[in-house]
Amino acid sequence: MPADRSFDLDGLSNELRNVLGDRLSTSQAIRDQHGQDESFHPIAAPDLVAFANSTDDVAKIVKLCAKYKAPVIAFGAGTALEGHVNAIYGGVCIDLGQMDAVMEVHTEDMDVSVQAGVRRRQLDEHLRDTGLHFPVDPGADATLGGMAATGASGTTTLRYGAMQQNVLAATMVLANGDIVKLGTRARKSSAGYDLLHLMIGSEGTLGIITELTLRLYGRPEVEASGVCAFDTVQNMVDAVTLAIQSEIPLARMELMDELAIYAVNMYAGLNNEVAPTLFLEFHGTPASVADDQKRFGEIADEFGGKGFRAASSPQERKKLWRARHEALYAAKSFNPGKNGLITDVCVPISKLAQSIADTRKDFDEHGILAAVVGHVGDGNYHTTIWVEPGDDAALKTAQGAVKRMVERALAMGGTCTGEHGIGMGKRLFLQEEHQSAMTMMRTIKLALDPDNIMNPGKVI
Amino acid sequence: MPADRSFDLDGLSNELRNVLGDRLSTSQAIRDQHGQDESFHPIAAPDLVAFANSTDDVAKIVKLCAKYKAPVIAFGAGTALEGHVNAIYGGVCIDLGQMDAVMEVHTEDMDVSVQAGVRRRQLDEHLRDTGLHFPVDPGADATLGGMAATGASGTTTLRYGAMQQNVLAATMVLANGDIVKLGTRARKSSAGYDLLHLMIGSEGTLGIITELTLRLYGRPEVEASGVCAFDTVQNMVDAVTLAIQSEIPLARMELMDELAIYAVNMYAGLNNEVAPTLFLEFHGTPASVADDQKRFGEIADEFGGKGFRAASSPQERKKLWRARHEALYAAKSFNPGKNGLITDVCVPISKLAQSIADTRKDFDEHGILAAVVGHVGDGNYHTTIWVEPGDDAALKTAQGAVKRMVERALAMGGTCTGEHGIGMGKRLFLQEEHQSAMTMMRTIKLALDPDNIMNPGKVI
Repeated sequence: MPADRSFDLDGLSNELRNVLGDRLSTSQAIRDQHGQDESFHPIAAPDLVAFANSTDDVAKIVKLCAKYKAPVIAFGAGTALEGHVNAIYGGVCIDLGQMDAVMEVHTEDMDVSVQAGVRRRQLDEHLRDTGLHFPVDPGADATLGGMAATGASGTTTLRYGAMQQNVLAATMVLANGDIVKLGTRARKSSAGYDLLHLMIGSEGTLGIITELTLRLYGRPEVEASGVCAFDTVQNMVDAVTLAIQSEIPLARMELMDELAIYAVNMYAGLNNEVAPTLFLEFHGTPASVADDQKRFGEIADEFGGKGFRAASSPQERKKLWRARHEALYAAKSFNPGKNGLITDVCVPISKLAQSIADTRKDFDEHGILAAVVGHVGDGNYHTTIWVEPGDDAALKTAQGAVKRMVERALAMGGTCTGEHGIGMGKRLFLQEEHQSAMTMMRTIKLALDPDNIMNPGKVI
Repeated sequence: MPADRSFDLDGLSNELRNVLGDRLSTSQAIRDQHGQDESFHPIAAPDLVAFANSTDDVAKIVKLCAKYKAPVIAFGAGTALEGHVNAIYGGVCIDLGQMDAVMEVHTEDMDVSVQAGVRRRQLDEHLRDTGLHFPVDPGADATLGGMAATGASGTTTLRYGAMQQNVLAATMVLANGDIVKLGTRARKSSAGYDLLHLMIGSEGTLGIITELTLRLYGRPEVEASGVCAFDTVQNMVDAVTLAIQSEIPLARMELMDELAIYAVNMYAGLNNEVAPTLFLEFHGTPASVADDQKRFGEIADEFGGKGFRAASSPQERKKLWRARHEALYAAKSFNPGKNGLITDVCVPISKLAQSIADTRKDFDEHGILAAVVGHVGDGNYHTTIWVEPGDDAALKTAQGAVKRMVERALAMGGTCTGEHGIGMGKRLFLQEEHQSAMTMMRTIKLALDPDNIMNPGKVI
């Protein structure tokens, strides 16, 4: 990465203006708004913000950026968590938010083609009458393009997979402005190199996703819930492991640790037992869900589960899951005005209880008060450490704790991020994790983006 | 691809001998045996066959091949179908068959680490007592390394996914002899570029897989079967589509067309109704399987299914599925001494009936007698055209029919191969399918293998 990223801003700006007219913005407010995501990384505003309406727009913009060797950064909803969109070397931010058309729904084939700027909830609304749904749910109302670019996943990944498993095809703009189509609408293919999966999770550093074809699923006839507290995280993980081995097709399995439960009790006036608690969701038919709930209840009993409760009516389900839904609000309410250093790791499930226990011990030793929530079936958990803006010592303490959390996860055969991605925040950890593969990643980056214009300073 | 692939064979041979001793073979019989797979492509023997015992062996061999710029081709069980292993430019074949250790089974994490030469049935035997299984089943008793390298899938892909979804990590040797580890044992990761999936299905042209970590599943408590004939393939596909939309978790859904049923009746003395027939397998608990069978039966009725029959006992299941299991033997028995030109395409399921009908019409018009079998839930089907060795006219007719079959599949939004891969046989089709992405594939190949020593003449 050369330190000098200067380019002829006036020349580029004029040429872009010819293409985009008033869809090119230089306003400080708009630039600032596009200069950060939801992470603690400080704003780094792009020089220009270009609003694209089509794949052709994106291709034209990137071609001009290539001509001027100017950085180009794709922007969806700005909900990333590791500084993915911050324009640390300036350049052009391409806002894809206006590319929000749901283009084609194929109900028989159970797929949908969307522009990259379509948001998750918008898609869900659009599909409501089809009996189908797109299940990947990272929490935030992100754009589908952003979700693909970061390789997002979430609470339903256990059952339905992450973005990696649910993108069938994509249209991309490469660093030279070429438009490529990757994948097909066929359910599987062994035709040539899997470039589609190389692009998913590449965080805009190899190309910009402009359109996606996504896999859909039938909406379950019944969605039912369950909640169960356990004496220890280890007992919970053992119960979850047996449930998975028994092929109980759970749709969601969410962990909240004692501190998370305590906080939400205080915040929302609940009286959940302060213990590691598992929140479950079952999808299926009335018969299969009843069978699954019964089977899970027996497993929970075997591992000392404390009063497994199950519910099927929407109202009862909402009540059961309320603690989980309020978790983030509870955490925020106890940390007004603070920045949240949000992080995640993912480990083999046999190491999950130990990993969480080690993290809790480390936090205690360093006076960090941070709850743990996680997708226990995937071995993935999150924590948010709250830091007063400007308190550098506290930030350093928090970053040290994250570093140790990641290093322990790597030593256990895990990964430095299960779903948030690398962005700016985890570049050093990526090197620790993929020592032998980093050269290969750099080779591919250099081959596809020789001038390093695509979201420079991110991932590698 | 330069026409001149000459290299100093004696020099390379001497250096390899120092490393491998009598694990280097120059015998014509052994070279011939390693010069072809199960396809109709003529033998192209490598100059040398090297038997590797370890990843380090492979690294040393590849380093020497890189030094001499000699082609290097990985060989597993030789069960590929598109000329993947044929040494069309000579060079060194690395036989990985002796790397057949199942290294570690993690029952809690439901994964297993194997050397690349472990075969599918061997792994199945090894796992028998664990209550877990590895479900990807391409039919042949291939090596797991070969299955990963070709992106194999098969009858159970509908439920469990293809190799793409079931490899968690791999150790690879790259073109310069470097050893890299890709992926982790964590169930998901968004850490950096997904090089693992770039390698799966790259057919030994970007690197050689030497070790794999695979995802395992709990063995179902009950495996039950069903069979149902339909008036038309369209009716069958409609029933299958509704079953998938209804989230009936079918493990296998296999189609045999009328000709396939007729042949197997003649061969095995069966009296199945000569009609498009669907073979089903259900995995689950006694309650869930009974529910699934009942639901599927109702759907079959709705689409004119003729007498859906279901069975749970191993003996009854075997009887129901006998026609499917005998299909290949039946076809072979009617074509003694002929070469089978085996091919597959995959289309969106809404196009499957039309695609099969068009193919049947084309075959009829060209006097080709070839049955169709397929994984109907994936939109993937296979056909084998039998050709007398030396009958060039018949081979040309067959290849013309395959070309039209592929082109129709591409026009329908499908892919030129669902599971067999590109090898030598489908390189031109790959270009038709991925016009815009071919440059990108070539860029990556050139970046990772600048001297084009890794399985040259395959894929691109």
